[in-house]
Amino acid sequence: MSEATTMRIAAVQMACDASREDNLARATHWIAEAAKAGATVVCLPELFTGPYFCQTEDTAAFERAEPVQGPTLTALAGVAREHRIAIVAPFFERRAAGIYHNSAGVLDAAGHFWGLYRKMHIPDDPGFYEKFYFTPGDLGFKTFPIGDTRIGVLICWDQWFPEAARLTAMQGASILFYPTAIGWVPDEKADQGAAQHAAWQTVQRGHAIANGVYVAAVNRIGMEQATQGQGAIEFWGQSFICDPQGQILAEASVDQEEILCVDLDVAQLEAVRRIWPFWRDRRIEAYAGLTDRWHTPGSETGGA
Amino acid sequence: MSEATTMRIAAVQMACDASREDNLARATHWIAEAAKAGATVVCLPELFTGPYFCQTEDTAAFERAEPVQGPTLTALAGVAREHRIAIVAPFFERRAAGIYHNSAGVLDAAGHFWGLYRKMHIPDDPGFYEKFYFTPGDLGFKTFPIGDTRIGVLICWDQWFPEAARLTAMQGASILFYPTAIGWVPDEKADQGAAQHAAWQTVQRGHAIANGVYVAAVNRIGMEQATQGQGAIEFWGQSFICDPQGQILAEASVDQEEILCVDLDVAQLEAVRRIWPFWRDRRIEAYAGLTDRWHTPGSETGGA
Repeated sequence: MSEATTMRIAAVQMACDASREDNLARATHWIAEAAKAGATVVCLPELFTGPYFCQTEDTAAFERAEPVQGPTLTALAGVAREHRIAIVAPFFERRAAGIYHNSAGVLDAAGHFWGLYRKMHIPDDPGFYEKFYFTPGDLGFKTFPIGDTRIGVLICWDQWFPEAARLTAMQGASILFYPTAIGWVPDEKADQGAAQHAAWQTVQRGHAIANGVYVAAVNRIGMEQATQGQGAIEFWGQSFICDPQGQILAEASVDQEEILCVDLDVAQLEAVRRIWPFWRDRRIEAYAGLTDRWHTPGSETGGA
Repeated sequence: MSEATTMRIAAVQMACDASREDNLARATHWIAEAAKAGATVVCLPELFTGPYFCQTEDTAAFERAEPVQGPTLTALAGVAREHRIAIVAPFFERRAAGIYHNSAGVLDAAGHFWGLYRKMHIPDDPGFYEKFYFTPGDLGFKTFPIGDTRIGVLICWDQWFPEAARLTAMQGASILFYPTAIGWVPDEKADQGAAQHAAWQTVQRGHAIANGVYVAAVNRIGMEQATQGQGAIEFWGQSFICDPQGQILAEASVDQEEILCVDLDVAQLEAVRRIWPFWRDRRIEAYAGLTDRWHTPGSETGGA
């Protein structure tokens, strides 16, 4: 094991208003703070360049989409270069007329574009009408080399799928970044809010434990009104970073812009995997059914 | 949805000493209590008929193994019939000279043998030398019809594998029972004990959330000395049952024998899956890699 086993990582929790320029300016401020704090890589929230437009189905919102080599990644490449920090940069991708993705580009500390992740699991719930906007990702699960290790990038709804975490960790990720836009629907908050937030945090801590990886969930803050109708979402902030045993290392407020910084220790990660050797014991010859949708409950025999 | 959507389930947390007869008698007492409390099905802890012999590798311990139609399941079939309650009955299975499994039989409320689960994931850590004793299960992941629904049975180390939970839930299980024997190694407890227990509970609550199922973890209690050498394990009790949102419904003490009873509500389970529709959105065409051991970190391209 080499001596330099730690790498400082950062997450930006921020509000996102209607102006791409304002959001980029605020993101740039927090990226600079993360670099000053010694971070090697920083992650921004899902779709951070604008409001969470998926509260309604409105074709006008597609005007926000941009190509990979568009204004967001172009601007952030300069920020990466200036501050010598790698950036996980979510954006609304226009791939072709009629094909749009919920994506994240990864820029290295020289501002080079390392690659793209396109959100694989697309939600559709009241107030989160993402299936109207986003073609499901077709790049599969991805990791990117940063510093002496690799990072994995997944986006929001991917959070709930153990398969996504596993397949990304399996490519050597030491950390899974989850840019996110999740919050409370005001009518549900009193009854359901605590349970919803707890489940969100718990399932991701579970991914950290099951895979022996760090996890960083990077959310936005603020109450956003729907652009049509009367809906609203109160984004719940509470971005967090946990270690390979699922222990919370840093957790942000509900309603403040801030950065989280922690030291990712790849030697500690390997130590955890040695005493909790889940990777050793996966029964891969018995997992073929995972590519099925469902197994109709069937024959149960003694089997002895 | 039919009107009768709930089914009461129970978990027995107990100590396990050297005598099969004593352990069976105590298990029978608690099963009767569960039946009195109205439970339809009750689960006992892993290998409950004896001490946790895997603290050392000792060929004498194989003498404890028994066939499926052996004293444990035979006795419990009578208990099931007498108290009209289905039983998840873990036992040390002797299948052939040289083939032994860590198994659980499922008996219905008439005492009929419904089937067998053989632990698929076998641990091997200092103090938990299970690979010496147990051939990995070859029956795959199993569910069993009980009342108006199906139950899944997994065992201890399976707890840490999202694949096991997924493949069992996929067969229509409303609840995953995890008979367990887990505890603290005394030397580690002060430093690591809280984190170990939290990770154990968290990863299982994560399975409940990701799959929209109830989870019942059923542990033993007590300090057990190794039969050879100087080791010991303090089994940490704290059996629990959580709902499909990962919320703890019942949790047992660290050191007392007791039963947990909760009402499993299959209508509520379906309501949760409607608003958190993870089953709808699995990207099964992208999951083939789950049957691989590892993916050597490789080509990362822009992919646009």
